[in-house]
Parts: sequence; structure tokens; C-alpha cells
Amino acid sequence: MHGLGNDFVIFDGREDRFDLSPDGARFVADRHRGVGCDQVITLWPSNVGDVFMRIQNADGSEVGACGNATRCVAHMMLQEFGADKITIETLAGLLHAERNGQQVRVDMGEPRLDWDQIPLAREMDTESVELVVGGLGNPVAVNMGNPHAIFFVDSVDGIDLEELGPQIETHELFPERANVSIVEKRGPGDLRLRVWERGAGITQACGSAACAAVVAASRRGLVERAAAIELDGGTLVMAWAEDNHVMMTGDVAYVFAGHVFAPFNLEGHDDRERR
Amino acid sequence: MHGLGNDFVIFDGREDRFDLSPDGARFVADRHRGVGCDQVITLWPSNVGDVFMRIQNADGSEVGACGNATRCVAHMMLQEFGADKITIETLAGLLHAERNGQQVRVDMGEPRLDWDQIPLAREMDTESVELVVGGLGNPVAVNMGNPHAIFFVDSVDGIDLEELGPQIETHELFPERANVSIVEKRGPGDLRLRVWERGAGITQACGSAACAAVVAASRRGLVERAAAIELDGGTLVMAWAEDNHVMMTGDVAYVFAGHVFAPFNLEGHDDRERR
Repeated sequence: MHGLGNDFVIFDGREDRFDLSPDGARFVADRHRGVGCDQVITLWPSNVGDVFMRIQNADGSEVGACGNATRCVAHMMLQEFGADKITIETLAGLLHAERNGQQVRVDMGEPRLDWDQIPLAREMDTESVELVVGGLGNPVAVNMGNPHAIFFVDSVDGIDLEELGPQIETHELFPERANVSIVEKRGPGDLRLRVWERGAGITQACGSAACAAVVAASRRGLVERAAAIELDGGTLVMAWAEDNHVMMTGDVAYVFAGHVFAPFNLEGHDDRERR
Repeated sequence: MHGLGNDFVIFDGREDRFDLSPDGARFVADRHRGVGCDQVITLWPSNVGDVFMRIQNADGSEVGACGNATRCVAHMMLQEFGADKITIETLAGLLHAERNGQQVRVDMGEPRLDWDQIPLAREMDTESVELVVGGLGNPVAVNMGNPHAIFFVDSVDGIDLEELGPQIETHELFPERANVSIVEKRGPGDLRLRVWERGAGITQACGSAACAAVVAASRRGLVERAAAIELDGGTLVMAWAEDNHVMMTGDVAYVFAGHVFAPFNLEGHDDRERR
């Protein structure tokens, strides 16, 4: 499946607790010798939600959450259960999702806005961070589980994000580095966003950046707590609800289904303890 | 399937003459929104061979032949038919392949060695082309359905192929451009090859370059018409037989099988004439 071009191979391990090893994840994600994907998802049973979603990166490491993967898994489970709402357990906690027409809406949680929650290197107003680089105005800082710097610009096309992204990501003001977004207001409730992802560079779509952008634009008075955000990979409809939760709505697509002929035991050594 | 990391999605269109449109091929080959592959193969019935192999590039264009794809399709068909030999029809003509233990041996046809068959811009000895660039010695020129320039070097690791490849590919001596290989002799019958492919840049494996390399090394007296050639993507065992045909033997791998959920009709307009 993919969400805005962020693509996933999803294994259903609910019956047999299929436990993909790091080597197995690297094989599955390999785009020439394996199946090929950005992240590998394994579904496991959950005691506290409807399903547990395990996420492994293409390098074999395990991560807590991914907004695009959450929409894909939620869509699968909503179909399977014939339900309207679903709760997905992840390493990062419980995620709530619901059907929204043909799309899926995911509760992305609450933004954190205090300077030491971003975190920034020192106390300052996160609505106007004291950072000037490359002719950009002061950004808004938002933490959505990861730190974001959101710059508002007249046109995203004139900005050399490949050049500025890494400078800002690693700026001393962001001790845990930052995801860097440039945002252009194209109309009422209509934003265009390009994103430099921390550790990954320019990507087609970043769900948490879309969350941070609707929060930042709301704080600046550019939108009324909701926006359609056009990313390189497609459009996400974002809302910052009155209960402070950020809701993300967007497309997912099934691409193919089948079975893998693995050249080795994808679960690694047979004798190691199962999770 | 893949052969040395050159990967393929293979449709069996022998029953229904499945006719993938250029848009369909681009979708299937897309590594983020489609299945993801280098080339898309469709099997059709053949009147003159055991099967017709259609090859579409990731950009939707159609090509005549691909050595790695031929090994993959031959392996499938040898298994299906329980045969030892197979004939595959392509736009470039008939290809013959046979079982060789767990591997597949493909007849890659005859090299052409005259200067105007390469082609070169003017008459000269193709065993020592009058071309000096980047400190490399004079190359051997071989045509294996496409033009190759083969340079013998002391060590492939010291050569900046990214820099030299495009200079040589587009040199005025090669009016149809050239694939550029650098070859190091590592032992008796043991060659190491790195390749810059015409129009594609550095790739993991190029079957026709391995063919050209065993021919060129034989002409220079470096091998006795046979060699194991180590490419970035794996090893091919090559032989230049007494009947002048070049035989290529190498691994193939099944990776996954399944069905595609297409977002549009992959065959294009329903009303157009079927091939």
C-alpha cells in the first residue's frame, strides 16, 4: 500500500506472530532484490487496541509511528472489521482512526508548543523563533512527536530547500535537530508545503509536518484551525480540533498483494525467543 | 524476479494476450506508487519459439532484448515445461537458453568486430581503438547488439567511472555512443568488471557488457575464451564458444508473486485494437 507515495509492505502476523528480523526487513525493503518499500509493517494482535502495528525502516531499525502507515493500516482494518473507528497500538502509543468517506482520518495527537518541549536550545517564543537564515522569516516551532520548524514564504518554488534544509536541521537552536517545512498560503484554507525531513532529506510527504503546518498557520492567523495541505506527493486535509488534537485525512491505495519467496529465514534464527 | 539485482515484474499474458499500455508500464515500474522494477515483462504465445517475451522499460518504451530478463524468463519456462532447452522470441529475434544445474545459460548471439559494425567513426583496428582518455589505455571495441568500449586496467577501484563514463560514451569516435566497461584481470579466467551503461549510467550488472568483456579479453590473450566475470551485482560465467556464439550463465531469483490492484485500466482504452 502507499499513502501519498510513502510505500509499505504489510505482513499479517496476527495468527503466527510473524517476527521479521532486521535482516529480513532489509531484504523485504530492498527495491532491487526484495519487494521494495520505505517501511515494512507487521500486524500483531493487541491487548489494548484492535491491532498492533510494528514499523521497521528499510535499514532494519524499528520506529514508533508513521502517519502514512497509520492511514494504510487503518484502512485495511476498517474494511476487515466493517467498523467506523479503530484503535491501533504502536511503540509510540495508541492511535485512533476513523472512516471518512473513501478516506481515513487519523488522530495524530496533540502538538507541544513550549520552547523546552520542541526542544529549543534556550527560552523564546515558539511562534517566532529567533532564527534568520537564507532570507527566510522567523519560523514557528512545533513538536508533533518530533521537532518542526515551519517557515511561511510568498512562494515555495523560489526556495532552495536542498541547500537550506540541512543548515536549519542542524542549527544549534535545535538540540535534537528539526524537520524543516516551507509553507505558502495559496488561498483561504489552502496551503502548499515542501518538507526537508530530519535524517532523510526532501520527501514527497510527511504527515507530522502537515500537522505542524496547520498548527503553525493557525497560530499565525493564516488559517482557521483547518487547511488542505498540498505536499509534493498529494494532498492531506488537516484540522486542529478544539480538544487540541490534530486530525489528518488523506488517501491510501492498495497496490499489490501476494507472497514472498524468501532466500533465507526472514524471521532470523529459529532458536531465538519470539516476541 | 531479478538477475544480479536487475529486477522485473513478469505478467503471464499467454492466455488473454494481456497488452500493457505505456501508462500501465510506467505505473507497474513505479517504485513508490506501483510494484517497482527496472523492466516490465509480458509473456505472449509465439509461433516460432516457446514463448514471446515483451520488454517495456520503466519509461513505457519497448526494447528488444535484455540478458538478465532472458535468464529469468528462461528459468520460469524451463521449470514450467520441465524442459532442458527453450527458445524465446523477442523483438530482437530468437534467443536460445538451456538449463545448467540450478542456473540458466543463454546464447547471447555473435559479437561483431568490424569497425563499421561497432560502429566507429572511421576505419581502425577494433582490438586497439585510437582513443586515449583519463590515463586509460586503448580500449577494445565490440558490438553485442549495442556498442561497447572495453578498457583493461590494473585495478577497477582506482578509476573514476562516474567522471569518465559519460565522456567516453559520447566521444566522437562512437557515432551511436557506447557502453563503457573497465576490466581488471584478477586471476586466470577471473575478471572484475564495472560498467557505465549507455543512457543509464553506472549499473549493477549489464549482460551484454559481460559478453563484450570475454570477447575483448580473449582477443587480447588475457583469457582463453572463457571467464567468470564479477560485476557489482554478482557473477556471470561467460564463454565465447567455437561457433562464435557468446554464452552467459548466471543466477536468477524469484522474489514475490501476486496480483496487482490497478488504479486504472492497465491495458489502456478498451476499444483500441488488441495486438
